[in-house]
Amino acid sequence: MAQETSGAYTLPGVGGDQRRATAYRRLPVEERRRQLLSTALELFSHRSPEHISIDDIAAAAGASRPLVYRYFPGGKQQIYEAALRSAAEELTACFVEPPEGTPTQRLANVLDRYLAFVAGHDAGFSALVRGGCVTETSRTTAIIDGVRRGAAEQVFVHLQVEAPGLRLRMAVRSWIAAVEAVSLTWLDEGRRPPADELRDWLVDHFVGILAAAAASDRQTAQVAAALLAQERADCGAGVLARRLLA
Amino acid sequence: MAQETSGAYTLPGVGGDQRRATAYRRLPVEERRRQLLSTALELFSHRSPEHISIDDIAAAAGASRPLVYRYFPGGKQQIYEAALRSAAEELTACFVEPPEGTPTQRLANVLDRYLAFVAGHDAGFSALVRGGCVTETSRTTAIIDGVRRGAAEQVFVHLQVEAPGLRLRMAVRSWIAAVEAVSLTWLDEGRRPPADELRDWLVDHFVGILAAAAASDRQTAQVAAALLAQERADCGAGVLARRLLA
Repeated sequence: MAQETSGAYTLPGVGGDQRRATAYRRLPVEERRRQLLSTALELFSHRSPEHISIDDIAAAAGASRPLVYRYFPGGKQQIYEAALRSAAEELTACFVEPPEGTPTQRLANVLDRYLAFVAGHDAGFSALVRGGCVTETSRTTAIIDGVRRGAAEQVFVHLQVEAPGLRLRMAVRSWIAAVEAVSLTWLDEGRRPPADELRDWLVDHFVGILAAAAASDRQTAQVAAALLAQERADCGAGVLARRLLA
Repeated sequence: MAQETSGAYTLPGVGGDQRRATAYRRLPVEERRRQLLSTALELFSHRSPEHISIDDIAAAAGASRPLVYRYFPGGKQQIYEAALRSAAEELTACFVEPPEGTPTQRLANVLDRYLAFVAGHDAGFSALVRGGCVTETSRTTAIIDGVRRGAAEQVFVHLQVEAPGLRLRMAVRSWIAAVEAVSLTWLDEGRRPPADELRDWLVDHFVGILAAAAASDRQTAQVAAALLAQERADCGAGVLARRLLA
C-alpha cells in the first residue's frame, strides 16, 4: 500500500495515550485519507462550517496543514464536500429497512436511526439543511437532494409502488420536507420532545398526509388500503391509520 | 426631493414608447431606487442569481453600471438582498386573510395568492428556497425564515391560538415546509397539476397533518374541534375535515 512520503506524522492527541505520544508514524495513504475525513466530519458535525479552518482539521487529526492540503488540494471546500458525501452515504444507509413487521413499525425503525443521525450531527445538520453557509454550492445541494431522493425511493419500496403518480410523489416529498423541518425545530428546541415521541409524531404525520392524499387520488387510495391491511389495530400508529385511512 | 446628480439617464426600453426614446431624464433618488429594485427583482425572479450581473441590471433599468453602484455600493449582493427583502414583504402580505368564510376556504384563498407569487417568481423562488447559490448568506436565510415565521403567525391567528404548544407548532411548521417542497416540485414538473388542484391538495395536507397531531395532543385536538365547527360539510375540504377530524 502507498505510504505518505514526507512530514506526515501522527502527533499526540490531547489526553491521548502517553506511550503513543512519541510514536510518530506514517500512515498508509488510504488510512490517512479516511482518518482526515472522519476527523473533518466530526468537526463539521458540531460546528457550522464557516467556523472551522484547515488548521482546526489538521490539529484535530494530528497532522500538518501541508499534509491536509496534499490530500485535499481544494482545501476546506473539498474536504467539506468529501465529508458531506460520506455523511450522505451513512444517512442514506439508515433508510434501508427489511420488509418485516407493520409498515408504521418499519417507518418508526427508520426514523429512530434518522433521528440518532440528526442528534449525532446536530450543528452540521442544521447548517447543511438551512443553507446560508459559505461552503454551500450547487454540488452540496445536489448531495442533499440525492439523500432526499434516496429517502423517497425507500418509501416507495415499502409502499410497493413502482411508478408513483404525481399526487403520491408530492405527498411523499412533502412528508420528507416536513421531517427535515421538524428535525431542525427539534434541535432548536433542545431536542424536545424526546426522540421516541417525535418519531411517533412523524409516523402520524405520514399517516395524515397519506390519508389526505388518498381522499383525492386513486393510486394513493389503493396504496393506503394495502398498507392498512398490513397494520395491527392495537398499536398506536395502527389505530390512527385505521381511523384516518379506513 | 433629492435628484440624481450626474449621468443618471433613463434609456429607451426595448419596444418602449418612441416619444420617450429621446426623453432622457433624471429620476428623483427614491424613484430611481425603486426602479432599480423592481428591475432587479424581475431579473432575479426568472433567472438564478449567479447568472445575473450588475451589467444586466443596469441594462434592463436603462442605467449605467456606475449609477447602479452609486445606489448599491455593495454591488450584486446588496441589490439581491434588497430585492429579496421587497419580495419577502410582498409574499408575507399574501398571507393576510380576513376571518370570514370557512377556515379551509380562507386557507385556499391564501394558497391561491401564494401559488400566484411562486409562479410569478419561478426561477428566483427555486434558487432561493433551494439555496446553493453564490448569493446565499446568513442574511438571506434570515429573510426567508422571517417569511416562514410570518406564515406560521397567520395560521395561528386563524386557529385562534395565542400560545401554541410544541406539538401544534411542529405541525404548522411541517405543513409550511411541505408547502415549500411541493411548490418546488410543482415548478420542476412544469406547473402540473393546475394551481387550483394543487391548492386543494395543500389544504387537504393541512387537514391531514392537523388530524394526525390532534390524535396525540390535547391543544391540537381542541383547535381542530373549533375549526371543524366552522366548516361546511358540503364542500371538498370540509368533507375531508369532517372525516379526518371528527
